[in-house]
Amino acid sequence: MVSEQVSYAYEKDPAAIYRQSFSIVRAEADLSALPSALHPVAIRLIHACGMIDVPQDLVWSGDLADAARSAFARSAPVFCDVEMVAHGLIRSRLPIGSNVVCSLNDPRVPDIAQRLGTTRSAAAIDLWADQLEGAVVAIGNAPTALFHLLENIAAGGPKPGLILGFPVGFVGAAESKEALIANPFDIPFLTIRGRRGGSAMAAAAVNGLAAGLPEEA
Amino acid sequence: MVSEQVSYAYEKDPAAIYRQSFSIVRAEADLSALPSALHPVAIRLIHACGMIDVPQDLVWSGDLADAARSAFARSAPVFCDVEMVAHGLIRSRLPIGSNVVCSLNDPRVPDIAQRLGTTRSAAAIDLWADQLEGAVVAIGNAPTALFHLLENIAAGGPKPGLILGFPVGFVGAAESKEALIANPFDIPFLTIRGRRGGSAMAAAAVNGLAAGLPEEA
Repeated sequence: MVSEQVSYAYEKDPAAIYRQSFSIVRAEADLSALPSALHPVAIRLIHACGMIDVPQDLVWSGDLADAARSAFARSAPVFCDVEMVAHGLIRSRLPIGSNVVCSLNDPRVPDIAQRLGTTRSAAAIDLWADQLEGAVVAIGNAPTALFHLLENIAAGGPKPGLILGFPVGFVGAAESKEALIANPFDIPFLTIRGRRGGSAMAAAAVNGLAAGLPEEA
Repeated sequence: MVSEQVSYAYEKDPAAIYRQSFSIVRAEADLSALPSALHPVAIRLIHACGMIDVPQDLVWSGDLADAARSAFARSAPVFCDVEMVAHGLIRSRLPIGSNVVCSLNDPRVPDIAQRLGTTRSAAAIDLWADQLEGAVVAIGNAPTALFHLLENIAAGGPKPGLILGFPVGFVGAAESKEALIANPFDIPFLTIRGRRGGSAMAAAAVNGLAAGLPEEA
């Protein structure tokens, strides 16, 4: 039987896989444009998507690393636009007490979306209000969620402690991230220009800022 | 106040966003190498990651579209290596009765991983055995999970109805997908060569094969 002859040789040790992965990323990626405080998060972002050229499209505010350190030191809640982001967070590496919130499947969301004439992802933002001040926001899917968050802030709503903006795709994604980059609200941010992004990158941004890399833990 | 002057113009209608997105992908992507039965899934894959050049790295077996149609007609279960894939599936577009299973957080997994000397992602595969024959498997993260699945099949274990192989990253990802492409077990598959992949693409593969695109629903 042909199946008897098949065997596979591959690395099985989780710690070795992590170590080799981050080592390859460090060897291949050009991180020279990033401050050293952001190298761990950039390495996590590259690791999450398999693309070495991610750093060329990253944009961040000068106070991002400090803002992240401060937010996680306070065990600030982490708000996510979609469940995929929430499920990509390494909970054991978040500070004890950090609350992870995704409101997309809250039963109130469809009514809010209909009333506002927008997506459920954007409507879900309105349920964050009372905990949003100083919180960590990770947007990994919906441009409308990032736009609506900025709208709420423009209207005088609570200001997150930092925004990790990684909407992906072809309609509004690049534009929503440019709006984040241009935001006049002095909110620290990290984002990736263009169409790339996604929930894995948004989760990696949280993981990288919350706890760096395994080798440094 | 500066915030009073800020406003954002963007598309808010979910149906219009989908329509425009898929229209841009159709206009920009070169799908000529793919059979027409796979255009919807290719468009979903591009849409999920924001990268028009995905089709150049896609590899599939000739019987993939038929195998997917057959599996979903039987309401075959969908096995996922990580929760992010499971949470990326559009449940309303799967056949009624389709069971979505991710075993990664099953309490038995750490012991199995330790006994086998492998990752939790790979160990979780061993809990699928009794439902795996003819099922849909979507791997969006772990090369070790894809390798271990192929090992189990080589050892005479149950054969899935189709394998959607999208491990991502730098250690074993490309190799595990080449092993899938070279598999001698006649299992229908879809995969992407190289380091790219991830849970959003694995979920998009299921969504695209199960139900095509919204405009065609």
